[in-house]
Amino acid sequence: MPHLVILYTGQLDHETDMTQLCRRLADTMRTVRDEAGEQVFPTGGVRVLAYPAAHYAVADGSGDHGFVYLNLRMGKGRSEATQKNAGQLLMATAREHFADLLTRRPVGITLQIDVGLPVFDARFGNLHPLFAPSA
Amino acid sequence: MPHLVILYTGQLDHETDMTQLCRRLADTMRTVRDEAGEQVFPTGGVRVLAYPAAHYAVADGSGDHGFVYLNLRMGKGRSEATQKNAGQLLMATAREHFADLLTRRPVGITLQIDVGLPVFDARFGNLHPLFAPSA
Amino acid sequence: MPHLVILYTGQLDHETDMTQLCRRLADTMRTVRDEAGEQVFPTGGVRVLAYPAAHYAVADGSGDHGFVYLNLRMGKGRSEATQKNAGQLLMATAREHFADLLTRRPVGITLQIDVGLPVFDARFGNLHPLFAPSA
Repeated sequence: MPHLVILYTGQLDHETDMTQLCRRLADTMRTVRDEAGEQVFPTGGVRVLAYPAAHYAVADGSGDHGFVYLNLRMGKGRSEATQKNAGQLLMATAREHFADLLTRRPVGITLQIDVGLPVFDARFGNLHPLFAPSA
Repeated sequence: MPHLVILYTGQLDHETDMTQLCRRLADTMRTVRDEAGEQVFPTGGVRVLAYPAAHYAVADGSGDHGFVYLNLRMGKGRSEATQKNAGQLLMATAREHFADLLTRRPVGITLQIDVGLPVFDARFGNLHPLFAPSA
Repeated sequence: MPHLVILYTGQLDHETDMTQLCRRLADTMRTVRDEAGEQVFPTGGVRVLAYPAAHYAVADGSGDHGFVYLNLRMGKGRSEATQKNAGQLLMATAREHFADLLTRRPVGITLQIDVGLPVFDARFGNLHPLFAPSA
């Protein structure tokens, strides 16, 4: 159920490898541990989806400014420390990925984590069993 | 104002008809009734939008895993029973739609319903009057 | 951090200039003032992203209906008056933009403002300094 959605200005597709960013962030999510050392985001539940905007406007339009918004929705019940830790690890990955791009162009990057509080929550499919912990 | 947004890994566009899924879910939304038998989602307010992700990463990248996230945002004021009923009807439609795909590939499907609590909410246009109940 | 995301039925790309709408809305955001006369959305933080849906279903499918959903996520701490003012200014811009289209086809337009309450919120990049107020 945890998933990370990336919304960004479409010109960046020509300047950085967003598929690689998705994979790096997914791998980072899998490393996050809670206070008990347990994996916070189960491997079978890690999903990162990135969407270049077909149309956009940033700031005052005075230049070809880029923008990347990363939003992670996670379930409730995690401690503030775990939420903060997840955010910091994802930020570190994003910083590393975009370091080179930032030397070449203006771009703003924001990461936010929301705690989802759905009134209905269901899932099906055949993905989770592939990654179920062995007994 | 109720709308259902579907975010999914883009490879699924080659394997299932997402336009058909949108129509099926829209038709399902129109059938949802509250305790008084009234239509929960007025026909003129039913909107389903589906977005294939241009880039994505699922689980550990060990295979071509698919993922579909369905998010319905509905207004406040509905009973828990009505929310749950809406969720179950939409899940049934999604299960039916994806049954065949699930025999052919790994895919995870999640449906969540959020209750929107906007601080500003306005609409205009000429769509609702086309579907207004006749007096 | 304030950003406006527009989700819409993809056929509208052939009928109205959504890049122009993004710029108009961004310019409108920059004009919003609070009770003290301060700019509510700093220029370097104004971002409008528009996404045509690849697949969609509106109402009962009885016609080629269009739909546009505008969602502004803003930070907490603003007065109700400021939130309402922002909404009304954005609505006025959207009404003006779509006035001509509405004479030619059915389309529903909804604008909602949400107050984001992220549990983690961070940013980096080189965009804001370009627009920092001079001392």
